[in-house]
Amino acid sequence: MTAYDPNNIFAKILRGEIPCENVYEDEDTLAFMDVMPQSAGHVLVIPKLGARNILDVPPEVLSTLILRVQKLARAAKDGMGADGVTVTQFNESASGQSVFHIHFHVIPRWEGIGLRPHAGGGMADPALLKAHADKIRAALAADS
Amino acid sequence: MTAYDPNNIFAKILRGEIPCENVYEDEDTLAFMDVMPQSAGHVLVIPKLGARNILDVPPEVLSTLILRVQKLARAAKDGMGADGVTVTQFNESASGQSVFHIHFHVIPRWEGIGLRPHAGGGMADPALLKAHADKIRAALAADS
Repeated sequence: MTAYDPNNIFAKILRGEIPCENVYEDEDTLAFMDVMPQSAGHVLVIPKLGARNILDVPPEVLSTLILRVQKLARAAKDGMGADGVTVTQFNESASGQSVFHIHFHVIPRWEGIGLRPHAGGGMADPALLKAHADKIRAALAADS
Repeated sequence: MTAYDPNNIFAKILRGEIPCENVYEDEDTLAFMDVMPQSAGHVLVIPKLGARNILDVPPEVLSTLILRVQKLARAAKDGMGADGVTVTQFNESASGQSVFHIHFHVIPRWEGIGLRPHAGGGMADPALLKAHADKIRAALAADS
């Protein structure tokens, strides 16, 4: 098992060293817009505790994290007016993992529209990310 | 929210009306080989409770289920000698969900080898599925 590297980009986001478009935060969890979205409204959900991926994350952290994934899945679908939502989670580079802090992708889906490739679609316009985040934050507020 | 349909194929597997290549079972969970694997060792992990997907599954069921996904992810990677593992979970047909009983896909990955399409690769040879299941069951036995 490779050790957790505290200098990965999500650890820097958690420390506030790099900005993010934050859509949800609590004691254990941060959710923010993926800057290379596979569809409109693509959110990443991460624990504040540093773990590499599902192979090493402590069970109690994972059990809480998946409930936040559920919360964001509902809000991303409702807020974006989507037809469905895809949840993906990659472990090790063979799986496509490129940031080694465990994260779940929550990706709104529409009938007949495919996904852009993972980490392959280029950087999104920050104003567009903020507009999508506003919709998801509104759905979270309506849900709570 | 569309209601849960108790006649979906995974509900039939849970009731023993359709066979499966079972790799893990406990009070709450069943894990079995996907008959249309996206890679060698592709496992499905489902709760015994009937829920459509992540949008309606009770939180306590989801929290337990993800711990079984973690267990199977480790066993599938170790048992299959894989380099990584992809976890996917589809919600509604727009996302590619084709069986409406919540399930997580646990898919072993190897460097440089892509995935076969979801539900698009045809039926696997049952003897091959059993051989892969044997490896994953051995890894689970070694882990417990």
